[in-house]
Amino acid sequence: MESQVIEVAYALDTFYFLVSGALVMWMAAGFSMLEAGLVRSKSTVEILTKNIALYSLACIMYMFIGYNIMYGDGLNSVIPGLSFFIGGDNTVEEVLASDGEIYYSGMSDFFFQVVFVATAMSIVSGAVAERMKLWAFLAFAVFMTGVIYPFQGYWSWGEGWLDELGYLDYAGSGIVHMTGAVAALAGVILLGARKGKYGPNGEVNAIPGANLPLATLGTFILWMGWFGFNGGSELKVSDIESANAVAQVFTNTNLAAAGGVLTAMIVTRLVYGKTDLTMGLNGALAGLVSITAEPLMPSPLLAVIIGAIGGAIVVFSIIGLDKLRIDDPVGAISVHGTAGIWGVFAVLLSNPDATFMNQLIGIVAIFAFVFIASLIVWAILKALMGIRISEEEEYEGVDQSECGLEAYPEFTVK
Amino acid sequence: MESQVIEVAYALDTFYFLVSGALVMWMAAGFSMLEAGLVRSKSTVEILTKNIALYSLACIMYMFIGYNIMYGDGLNSVIPGLSFFIGGDNTVEEVLASDGEIYYSGMSDFFFQVVFVATAMSIVSGAVAERMKLWAFLAFAVFMTGVIYPFQGYWSWGEGWLDELGYLDYAGSGIVHMTGAVAALAGVILLGARKGKYGPNGEVNAIPGANLPLATLGTFILWMGWFGFNGGSELKVSDIESANAVAQVFTNTNLAAAGGVLTAMIVTRLVYGKTDLTMGLNGALAGLVSITAEPLMPSPLLAVIIGAIGGAIVVFSIIGLDKLRIDDPVGAISVHGTAGIWGVFAVLLSNPDATFMNQLIGIVAIFAFVFIASLIVWAILKALMGIRISEEEEYEGVDQSECGLEAYPEFTVK
Amino acid sequence: MESQVIEVAYALDTFYFLVSGALVMWMAAGFSMLEAGLVRSKSTVEILTKNIALYSLACIMYMFIGYNIMYGDGLNSVIPGLSFFIGGDNTVEEVLASDGEIYYSGMSDFFFQVVFVATAMSIVSGAVAERMKLWAFLAFAVFMTGVIYPFQGYWSWGEGWLDELGYLDYAGSGIVHMTGAVAALAGVILLGARKGKYGPNGEVNAIPGANLPLATLGTFILWMGWFGFNGGSELKVSDIESANAVAQVFTNTNLAAAGGVLTAMIVTRLVYGKTDLTMGLNGALAGLVSITAEPLMPSPLLAVIIGAIGGAIVVFSIIGLDKLRIDDPVGAISVHGTAGIWGVFAVLLSNPDATFMNQLIGIVAIFAFVFIASLIVWAILKALMGIRISEEEEYEGVDQSECGLEAYPEFTVK
Repeated sequence: MESQVIEVAYALDTFYFLVSGALVMWMAAGFSMLEAGLVRSKSTVEILTKNIALYSLACIMYMFIGYNIMYGDGLNSVIPGLSFFIGGDNTVEEVLASDGEIYYSGMSDFFFQVVFVATAMSIVSGAVAERMKLWAFLAFAVFMTGVIYPFQGYWSWGEGWLDELGYLDYAGSGIVHMTGAVAALAGVILLGARKGKYGPNGEVNAIPGANLPLATLGTFILWMGWFGFNGGSELKVSDIESANAVAQVFTNTNLAAAGGVLTAMIVTRLVYGKTDLTMGLNGALAGLVSITAEPLMPSPLLAVIIGAIGGAIVVFSIIGLDKLRIDDPVGAISVHGTAGIWGVFAVLLSNPDATFMNQLIGIVAIFAFVFIASLIVWAILKALMGIRISEEEEYEGVDQSECGLEAYPEFTVK
Repeated sequence: MESQVIEVAYALDTFYFLVSGALVMWMAAGFSMLEAGLVRSKSTVEILTKNIALYSLACIMYMFIGYNIMYGDGLNSVIPGLSFFIGGDNTVEEVLASDGEIYYSGMSDFFFQVVFVATAMSIVSGAVAERMKLWAFLAFAVFMTGVIYPFQGYWSWGEGWLDELGYLDYAGSGIVHMTGAVAALAGVILLGARKGKYGPNGEVNAIPGANLPLATLGTFILWMGWFGFNGGSELKVSDIESANAVAQVFTNTNLAAAGGVLTAMIVTRLVYGKTDLTMGLNGALAGLVSITAEPLMPSPLLAVIIGAIGGAIVVFSIIGLDKLRIDDPVGAISVHGTAGIWGVFAVLLSNPDATFMNQLIGIVAIFAFVFIASLIVWAILKALMGIRISEEEEYEGVDQSECGLEAYPEFTVK
Repeated sequence: MESQVIEVAYALDTFYFLVSGALVMWMAAGFSMLEAGLVRSKSTVEILTKNIALYSLACIMYMFIGYNIMYGDGLNSVIPGLSFFIGGDNTVEEVLASDGEIYYSGMSDFFFQVVFVATAMSIVSGAVAERMKLWAFLAFAVFMTGVIYPFQGYWSWGEGWLDELGYLDYAGSGIVHMTGAVAALAGVILLGARKGKYGPNGEVNAIPGANLPLATLGTFILWMGWFGFNGGSELKVSDIESANAVAQVFTNTNLAAAGGVLTAMIVTRLVYGKTDLTMGLNGALAGLVSITAEPLMPSPLLAVIIGAIGGAIVVFSIIGLDKLRIDDPVGAISVHGTAGIWGVFAVLLSNPDATFMNQLIGIVAIFAFVFIASLIVWAILKALMGIRISEEEEYEGVDQSECGLEAYPEFTVK
């Protein structure tokens, strides 16, 4: 009898993990639509191709190597080990504690984690859009999802040194989102801006996205998927305390996004005199990123405030990066990087266990490691195969040169 | 041991609420895509902006005021009170009965209710499309989601007088859908029709939507989200009786939509000689609205019939409103209002506790209150800031004047 | 007390079924978007209309007849009976075993099965796109969903002769996917190719899809929905063994799709020199179809391999069908048929209970029955009402002749 209750709880936790994971997988569609909507039509096929390919690569690389690095037995708290032989069979064992504590299927944990690494990689895709070689990008994805992401992920979630230190990052404002943004930043710096984005006298030319309904759809998909991303990160739902926690996380996640939308819209209204939809979308995502490091402890009101600050920050970050001539066609570095950093520090507002110094150390360590590791990989790829398409190819559009297809072949383009 | 079972049941009910709520949140994407597909391309950015902003406003206003009005301690059964101090912390307490009856997390209830108010407001958005000022709309959203919807919602779901009377409306054909439609109707009457919609000699000019795949996607999203909307409204799943009820609700909801599609298509085929996709989409939604007041008691066959009648009604309602020169670009008033009224009376077909008089009183009371309250708010907004863009702005498109962006900037528009 | 645990388990299994079913319903949106993206703009409204209408028809026909045929008491193991009177009330009884084994709501089973038949029918829709009469297609859908699919489904899942024989097909690579593909094949053979697809000297002219972001979205939707399709087919989640099984199924389903994407992309890169997005999408779907007959027993690594082989097969199948001048605008016959056959045989790689001969007999029997039955129905429809639109109508586009609407009325088409 007692074991029957444990079995049902185990099943509920496993099912909760799987539903959450399916929602995070759905975020891959969100990133695809967001990015496809925010680039020009001549770069759309390539960004769709990148997105579905990177998701696939991420799943397979993480199965072969990444999961083992991140959750295997470490060599020490800084350098992860690789405790399982390659093959993907290492995750099948049941996780059921002998002391009666209730656990969930190990495979469901793998499924949940594997979709996280895809999220981190999706962030990179948008920032390097419209000018990067497709297969250079995919080569980077192999390293990012197989090694770079899991290496730093081990520090926090694999019981490494950041975990020991007390760095707090519930669902990964830093570990996932900033990591993706920093890898993107390294790529963008080596890659350079799109032709025509910046004029010789400091002009910043707007390059509007070709399909804003798609971008809006992508944002809603990401918003929905985030309920799995944050909501699943409680890792358990089967008792009253956990269930209440998951409910709080859902509510706060939703409210932070709502706060981000409104401040981003109000700020752009005040700054530009128009209500900019794309900034509203970025505001939603910034709100979501901001609450991700601590979606459990804040009150609903505080969640709105944290998201609202994220929504304002992202507008100024986008303006600021353009001043630095860092060309990020979809605003990914600002949304996931700048708001991610804010999110890590926002933990201090509600979680008494967080300290400023620990959060700072975590952010600096992750930033430094991911930036340097990414820069090295990008630089090697640049030397080996080149990472940027030719000027002529860029003028014609990366779709023609890399994919040989048009996204909208029948519509007349201005 | 016994408490452990109660905990798992509590967790299951909470998780069921959260999944249902996430599906209802997803309906916000459905309304966005449906409306963006059914308006012209020059009005698309504004309707996307409205949809993401209204969802955000609805969540925040409902947190601050609306939830407290709707579910707080009433002053009496007609006038709700405001029992909690503003701040959004009032929903965290656990709901666990001392008599052993199983409950769910109070925060999960808040999350589920908050997405309902967004649904009601989304309905308004489509009906006033293409000619309303953005910020006037958003100002109305503040009142609608903070006060008007919760005020009448208290009557039925907050243990107010309609609940005492015996007005039956399971998931809100009247309380949510007709409420949204009536608020829209009041706005449309003050706003007037789009330029060119009606000719001087009674002509009704079709203004086709710019992107029908988007509209179809929106309909499928809403269909899916409705499983959460109706399915979650059982409020409990964790025993055999409740689980059977939720399964019946899912099945009937699906079948009513299917019935609505087919009759709407057949009717338009007979009336116009062509099979009109947009009418089919409206038929699906009308079927869903029709079953919402009582998705539990009908047999599957009766569910098909209720939905099918809704699908036929909506076609004639759209034709009728055009005769009255009430210009509703997406058919929202017919889908949610006319079919909503039908849904409330369709309860009589299967629920022996329903009486014609009680259903009638409920409908009349909600209609009258929402219409008058909305008319007052719209009229005040009209006087204070104006609700309609200028004729020239309308000609250029509301996107240019209000948002400064084009939805499809690269595609050549006829 | 014991009964309370049973009730919670019953509720969890029911809820799991309903969530899975909602995900499979969502696949209807996936097929719609995939097909709408892969046809020309002049055929888009009709394919959207077909998709929402076929889903509706499938639900209603299966309620009236199909479910009774498939799961009713058979006359014998080959010929199904029709044990319930038409009316749709036959599914409400609770399924709760007296021996203490835990079951789920019968209505939730119906809901899950009803969305499967819609999937099978959706497959047909894409293959006959751009040249078939709308109402001939819908008439076929009535027979397919009411009789043809359930008749052969009874053999395997209704305890008929294929089940007795030992034909193994977990979630239906053969029973659902190949069945849809074979019904499509019969239709395409009678229908003939689109004008201009094949030249007089054996040329195969590419007819690119009008909206590749939509097609990509559709693929992601199908990928997500497949977690319900395969994951729900375990039929139970409420104990440790079942929960582990469902987790394995989710993981393998995801990895097979990932494998399919990568091989399809690599193969097209090698064959054509370009990375073809649409082949990548077909690769994902082929991977999913391939793993569907046995998503439980393979290790994650084997799941990747099974999917990867499926992704390669589909490329060559599409090329091969074009050589045979079998015109399938969206590649549905290759994705669901060829990869489906591969999937049925791939069971042999991991399930020791499977034998080559039993799998072969299953495939041949289903193929033969569905092909002949479909051919007869298509032929009768052809004789009675015609199945192909006129040459002029095809030139103008099926949207004009059948629906009287344009999908993108404002965009200038080349």
